Amino acid sequence: MKQILFMLAIMCAMAMNAQQDFFAPPANSPVIGKDGSVTFKVKAPGADTVRLIIDTRLDTLMQRQGDGTWQLRLRDLEPDLYMYHYIIDGMKVLDNENAHVLRDVKNVMNTFVLDPNGDCPMAVHDVPHGDVQAVWYDSPNLGAKRRMMIYLPPGYEQSHQRYPVFYLLHGSGGDETVWLEQGRAAQVLDNLIASGAATPMIVVMPNGNVDEKAAPGMGPEGNVQPTFAHKNWMDGTFEQSFNDIMTWVDNNYRTRANKRYRAIAGLSMGGYHSLYISANQPDDFAYVGLFSAAINRMDQGKSTIYNDLEAKLVTQFKQRPKLYWIGIGKDDFLYKDNVKFRELLDKNRLRYTYHESTAGHEWANWRDYLVIFTQSLFK
Amino acid sequence: MKQILFMLAIMCAMAMNAQQDFFAPPANSPVIGKDGSVTFKVKAPGADTVRLIIDTRLDTLMQRQGDGTWQLRLRDLEPDLYMYHYIIDGMKVLDNENAHVLRDVKNVMNTFVLDPNGDCPMAVHDVPHGDVQAVWYDSPNLGAKRRMMIYLPPGYEQSHQRYPVFYLLHGSGGDETVWLEQGRAAQVLDNLIASGAATPMIVVMPNGNVDEKAAPGMGPEGNVQPTFAHKNWMDGTFEQSFNDIMTWVDNNYRTRANKRYRAIAGLSMGGYHSLYISANQPDDFAYVGLFSAAINRMDQGKSTIYNDLEAKLVTQFKQRPKLYWIGIGKDDFLYKDNVKFRELLDKNRLRYTYHESTAGHEWANWRDYLVIFTQSLFK
Repeated sequence: MKQILFMLAIMCAMAMNAQQDFFAPPANSPVIGKDGSVTFKVKAPGADTVRLIIDTRLDTLMQRQGDGTWQLRLRDLEPDLYMYHYIIDGMKVLDNENAHVLRDVKNVMNTFVLDPNGDCPMAVHDVPHGDVQAVWYDSPNLGAKRRMMIYLPPGYEQSHQRYPVFYLLHGSGGDETVWLEQGRAAQVLDNLIASGAATPMIVVMPNGNVDEKAAPGMGPEGNVQPTFAHKNWMDGTFEQSFNDIMTWVDNNYRTRANKRYRAIAGLSMGGYHSLYISANQPDDFAYVGLFSAAINRMDQGKSTIYNDLEAKLVTQFKQRPKLYWIGIGKDDFLYKDNVKFRELLDKNRLRYTYHESTAGHEWANWRDYLVIFTQSLFK
Repeated sequence: MKQILFMLAIMCAMAMNAQQDFFAPPANSPVIGKDGSVTFKVKAPGADTVRLIIDTRLDTLMQRQGDGTWQLRLRDLEPDLYMYHYIIDGMKVLDNENAHVLRDVKNVMNTFVLDPNGDCPMAVHDVPHGDVQAVWYDSPNLGAKRRMMIYLPPGYEQSHQRYPVFYLLHGSGGDETVWLEQGRAAQVLDNLIASGAATPMIVVMPNGNVDEKAAPGMGPEGNVQPTFAHKNWMDGTFEQSFNDIMTWVDNNYRTRANKRYRAIAGLSMGGYHSLYISANQPDDFAYVGLFSAAINRMDQGKSTIYNDLEAKLVTQFKQRPKLYWIGIGKDDFLYKDNVKFRELLDKNRLRYTYHESTAGHEWANWRDYLVIFTQSLFK
């Protein structure tokens, strides 16, 4: 509140005195140098220890300075989106000099984009931007209107063209917003389309938790918190209702409504969804992407969706998908499941593209996979 | 990171053991009782003092409990959106049990909606929801593509109707997102339309800071921080370019493109913008709303937009606007300016509706004004 009152006081002073000096823009935090270095600085004169946590990438002690601040400069970070917070004497504290925050499931962190050369696909560049829509589609199978996010490529509104559609699914703990937030899907698509690396396409980001109508806070469920705890989790319900989404999208947008111009991909649980939706609907998707897919996570007996996978895959691949793409990090806890799945494909001589990255089950990988996968679509 | 690893461990354990117990939903924070009480609880066993700050409404010490937590229960809070944070031994700390956050300019806070009776217009209810779009419009006058937010009433996509348009402007320090975030504009419109209290309408929320193309972080300016410090601040540039917005909206949506079906309102700086845009374009708006308007904040000589206000108002009112609405709180630092402005209107016998509320320059008032004003539009 003090900050608010202070700023109001400044506003009044400014308006009355017209002293433009008050209007110096705020410092950015962290400070990103022209050399691509990133300097973190936090004021905590009475603290014993201050740690900096950068998402899944770093957890390190900071250095106390003479002026009561704690600092750390990092070099050689890859261009990407980063999420971070501090631990001051054991207590999680955000960077008050950085108003940009994102949440990972329930964990709120500060965020910044590192783009030292102006070519990071996750950064906003001065290129044509697609529109992003939050819409409520009708799902007769789930008996609800449900929220999903739609990316329309630049020029969609002005053109009379029809566009291919890419269904992009989130993981457990996520919702319809997460590919836009942590995933930077709109920025990635804007940049890849602008450079000609990707074909203009519609991207559809539904909510894969069938027990919620919308992301926590956006639905009629009230002040619920984000969670991994969802009913009907990976039991076939989402897969069985997926046609509701496709029907609604084809009815409400100028889509090229056939297999050749339809892709589906997802991360973790969304990879699992993508696998089974595409295997059960072999006539619907020419492009399939499994990003760190949670293959074989659940009992296979619960739903017919999960039965006879091998036979379904053989049928699916007989029709030669244009691309069946599998990406995973070496340290992912799902790595072995993905090895087994590839062995199943190999045994049946089903051809896929495999991308193995470093690191594990994390957004840095999933953003990369999105950049790679998207460039192969609809060509 | 520990939380993430912990949840991943849980996921693995769950998947392997199928022990649904792990999947208990998380506790909500703060805890809202059936009696409408709100209990805040924060763990800080080593702290000397813990303060709870609720936006502009409360700043109070919390009580230490035997178990090392600090608690406070509040009763008789009005149904509304609330923003809060803690100050633990002088350090700002967010509520780690609440993943919902909003920022007020640069100040990030936790948030919750208090809706004990299920009738708070700021809460999400199980009613038809309008779509919300982030679009990039062309502004020839500003030489840029700029981002703005559009609310489309439920049924817009399926109908062939044309709709009235409400232009809703933010204050200094705000941007195109703030009426949707702190202002709860989509929820307010959904609820008022569902109950029949408001006419279905399109709501257009542009960015009134002419030196930025989009909200901080969403534009090509990179990792910039939200600020009051904008170039060409209240110098007439935004008002002079406003036709670009109206033209784009009328070209891209099914609008009823005439004065009878057009409204403009804004808070603080946005009220100032609404005052001068409507006074300079007397043929364009039948409904004008000034919410805690920053009347006479700046030198009047800078732009022809600000010249001859009295004569312009007389011309504007000759054409009998359907509603000229002024709302302000008794404690607002702009109260006296609004008194003077009403005296100017009174002197010229220009008829307006005046709503005086308690409290000051704050979102609780602006959300209320939105609820009141919107119900009078296009009837």
